[in-house]
Amino acid sequence: MENRNPFELLAKSSRSKARRGRIHTAHGDIETPIFMPVGTLASVKGLSVRDLREIEAQIILANTYHLYLRPGTPLIAEAGGVQKFMGWNGPMLTDSGGFQVWSLKDFRHITEDGVEFKSLLDGSRHKFTPESVMKAQREIGADIIMAFDECTPYPSTVEEASHSLDFTLKWTRRAMDWLAENPPLHGYPQYFFGIVQGGMHKELRKKSIEALKELAPDGYAMGGLSVGEPVEIMYEIADFCTNYLPEDRARYVMGVGTPWNLLELIQRGVDMFDCILPAKNAQDGLVYTCRGVLRYKGAKFAHSHDIPLDPECDCYCCRNYSRGYMRHLFKAKEPLGWTLSTIHNLHFYLKLMKNARAHIEAGDYEDWAAEMIPQLQRNAE
Amino acid sequence: MENRNPFELLAKSSRSKARRGRIHTAHGDIETPIFMPVGTLASVKGLSVRDLREIEAQIILANTYHLYLRPGTPLIAEAGGVQKFMGWNGPMLTDSGGFQVWSLKDFRHITEDGVEFKSLLDGSRHKFTPESVMKAQREIGADIIMAFDECTPYPSTVEEASHSLDFTLKWTRRAMDWLAENPPLHGYPQYFFGIVQGGMHKELRKKSIEALKELAPDGYAMGGLSVGEPVEIMYEIADFCTNYLPEDRARYVMGVGTPWNLLELIQRGVDMFDCILPAKNAQDGLVYTCRGVLRYKGAKFAHSHDIPLDPECDCYCCRNYSRGYMRHLFKAKEPLGWTLSTIHNLHFYLKLMKNARAHIEAGDYEDWAAEMIPQLQRNAE
Repeated sequence: MENRNPFELLAKSSRSKARRGRIHTAHGDIETPIFMPVGTLASVKGLSVRDLREIEAQIILANTYHLYLRPGTPLIAEAGGVQKFMGWNGPMLTDSGGFQVWSLKDFRHITEDGVEFKSLLDGSRHKFTPESVMKAQREIGADIIMAFDECTPYPSTVEEASHSLDFTLKWTRRAMDWLAENPPLHGYPQYFFGIVQGGMHKELRKKSIEALKELAPDGYAMGGLSVGEPVEIMYEIADFCTNYLPEDRARYVMGVGTPWNLLELIQRGVDMFDCILPAKNAQDGLVYTCRGVLRYKGAKFAHSHDIPLDPECDCYCCRNYSRGYMRHLFKAKEPLGWTLSTIHNLHFYLKLMKNARAHIEAGDYEDWAAEMIPQLQRNAE
Repeated sequence: MENRNPFELLAKSSRSKARRGRIHTAHGDIETPIFMPVGTLASVKGLSVRDLREIEAQIILANTYHLYLRPGTPLIAEAGGVQKFMGWNGPMLTDSGGFQVWSLKDFRHITEDGVEFKSLLDGSRHKFTPESVMKAQREIGADIIMAFDECTPYPSTVEEASHSLDFTLKWTRRAMDWLAENPPLHGYPQYFFGIVQGGMHKELRKKSIEALKELAPDGYAMGGLSVGEPVEIMYEIADFCTNYLPEDRARYVMGVGTPWNLLELIQRGVDMFDCILPAKNAQDGLVYTCRGVLRYKGAKFAHSHDIPLDPECDCYCCRNYSRGYMRHLFKAKEPLGWTLSTIHNLHFYLKLMKNARAHIEAGDYEDWAAEMIPQLQRNAE
């Protein structure tokens, strides 16, 4: 496979590992550090493409496992790729589904060849191999596609984590071999990211990175983080990994996290993030604001007629609706409430990333992050 | 109470009773014939105010019974009225809740004084009287408020319907007396519409109208239609009523109906409509189009990548999304699918009313409606 690199390193902090970069794709450039809203089934919960543009989403994440089951990846290929299918003419990334089939626990069987599993939708039997998952990702047609990995549970012994890592490395090699033989279907490049595993064992993380470097994927993800370990260990492992990852390639921590997690990880040299947290929390009546975490379903907010969720926010929700009305929508289970609070939370994450980029450029990222992190963590009134 | 009339009759068809009119309110004018999207709990299912503007909604309907229970009408008064509460700076109408408490069947007790009922939300006991419901509607602050009526079941004997009608007339008198003593709370007029009852008994409908005319409400609604009777009887009763209703006042048929029902009723002299049907059907995967009724969840639509729900529609959904994607969203129970199809259906109703108004003005409403009705009723491919 040709050696390609969509990532351009634009600037580096002199005081930390924070980086400012750009990822070039056929559907547009992505400014990093970036957060990717999750659209598992080719839809970001309740948000239209106009909403996504308005919150300045740059890249949307979808999931191969879910799209394989519904509507089926050949159908997405027939539509001309997931961007056309969902009416989003911008960059996309697909997760391979490794984590999802692994999570099926009692309904999957893992062998060196791949994973057999039973669909929870209709009980039908399926098998994912590194090759079949790459084929599915070719059909979906995201701009960035991910290795099929075997996840490592937390906690795990060195032996367990090592065994799991061996599978991931073998599968990554097979995936890259298959991709080299089978070009993209939709007329534009698909960049392949390898996934660093190894649990919380630094020597295995290092081994994983060294083996991946030899394979030279187009970018690097760190998997198996935020799986139950203390947050300080998560920071430490990511920090350790970025010491060994090639500086000229994009670095993506998968499935993390809170706004302050993102700021901590940016400082440790990470470029890309995704997480269901902002959308999920929005459904639960929890929003992130410049003044901290706001649980707006509290009774006291019923009378907040003149203040939006976040007084310093310029998202569609905060420009048009009060906390009192948002609380009413939440209590009445009105779908508009879920959509509006999801718009707010995703906009908040994307604005935070935009500010992070500006502060890296201005050279004061570390001061800004140190000030922001405790503000973000407190309870908003 | 002063005698006021927000309705202006602009034009009349020479070949039917179809009318073109305008209702003047403090929050803007409403061009009639008009369909009013239902926002029971001060929210039209999943639609933002921007969506409502874009589909050219002119007036939104909310429900006194539902808002009384949640969030409570004093809270809406505190917010400055329902328009401010929900961020919709346009005309609104509230139904009185008569139909809703009547529908509680085993959980309500009707006396001449009013209706005692048990909340299905928390089992708490409440009582609605004509006075208390007018007070609640003053607090909510809609531009048009409705009489508190006692609904007549279908079928009903003359005696049953007559007994029910007596209650409605007495309650309407008490409501108007209370309103005369208790001016609006939010600094703008609220127009009061009486409700014609009498079941399917023409002599009672006539009696109802004559009694209401003496009370001279600001407008007239026809209640107790589309409650199970054959559609031809519904048309006949509405047709009968509009022969006796004063020509210079707005006429509103409550809770009706399909797109072709609306065209039939416009021809019989009706100006205003509301119905949950377009939003409810959208949730069930049924949309109205210029080519007929489309059930887009059918398997054959999975491959419709290049055709929107309605090829002749310019709503946000049809401008941006394919039938294939809409079917996927529906199958995957993605909330975006419900919002988009609701946008389409409501836009379709409002566009139909816009076209109806243009054809009344052009003098060819009857020809147009005769052509449209069978087109609307067929199954779209």
